[in-house]
Amino acid sequence: MMGRFAEGLVPPYFAVIFANQLRDPAPGYEAMAERMAALAETMPGYLGVESTRDAEGFGLTVSYWESEAAIAHWKKQSDHLAAQDTGMREWYARYHLRVARIERAYAGPDGRPALT
Amino acid sequence: MMGRFAEGLVPPYFAVIFANQLRDPAPGYEAMAERMAALAETMPGYLGVESTRDAEGFGLTVSYWESEAAIAHWKKQSDHLAAQDTGMREWYARYHLRVARIERAYAGPDGRPALT
Repeated sequence: MMGRFAEGLVPPYFAVIFANQLRDPAPGYEAMAERMAALAETMPGYLGVESTRDAEGFGLTVSYWESEAAIAHWKKQSDHLAAQDTGMREWYARYHLRVARIERAYAGPDGRPALT
Repeated sequence: MMGRFAEGLVPPYFAVIFANQLRDPAPGYEAMAERMAALAETMPGYLGVESTRDAEGFGLTVSYWESEAAIAHWKKQSDHLAAQDTGMREWYARYHLRVARIERAYAGPDGRPALT
């Protein structure tokens, strides 16, 4: 269960909030998503990810990064660019992508700051 | 489908990224979540929400706000305080809450800025 959370991050840091509605079907999506998640972990400045999707195919993935430069670098990674292109053409009926700066954070249920 | 997305927001604005793992069972959670979502919509500075949860009970809810003051006001709203208290005691096995400033945003699959 703990593995679903990005733990131990100290603000400020940055996030990419990716909300998306998958098409049905979305052939090849699962395999690509796994490859991209594994690839993101190898990128400079990657801090972690939280991701979930419901039975209707609506998903939210929030990835965390040390800097906006790290996000820009990941966006331009070549395999990732190819996945983005296929995603826009074949997998996503709609998406919103937002880049954010995390100002403060808490974890619980104990309510302490999420610094440990 | 469009109703799942927070549309037409112009950066900068603010977000609360709430990642959470529900206990199983979590009695009363669904009704509370619906009441809180309806209440949030009535709060000053509320801009929208994106939310999803998988079959394992791992959820992400991102609510969007005009200002950090609006977020602070919502956090202290009395019915919401009661829900937070019950949530910490009864519903959430674990959560992370992060407050972020949205710097820029895009929507697709057409790739245009998410300003329309």
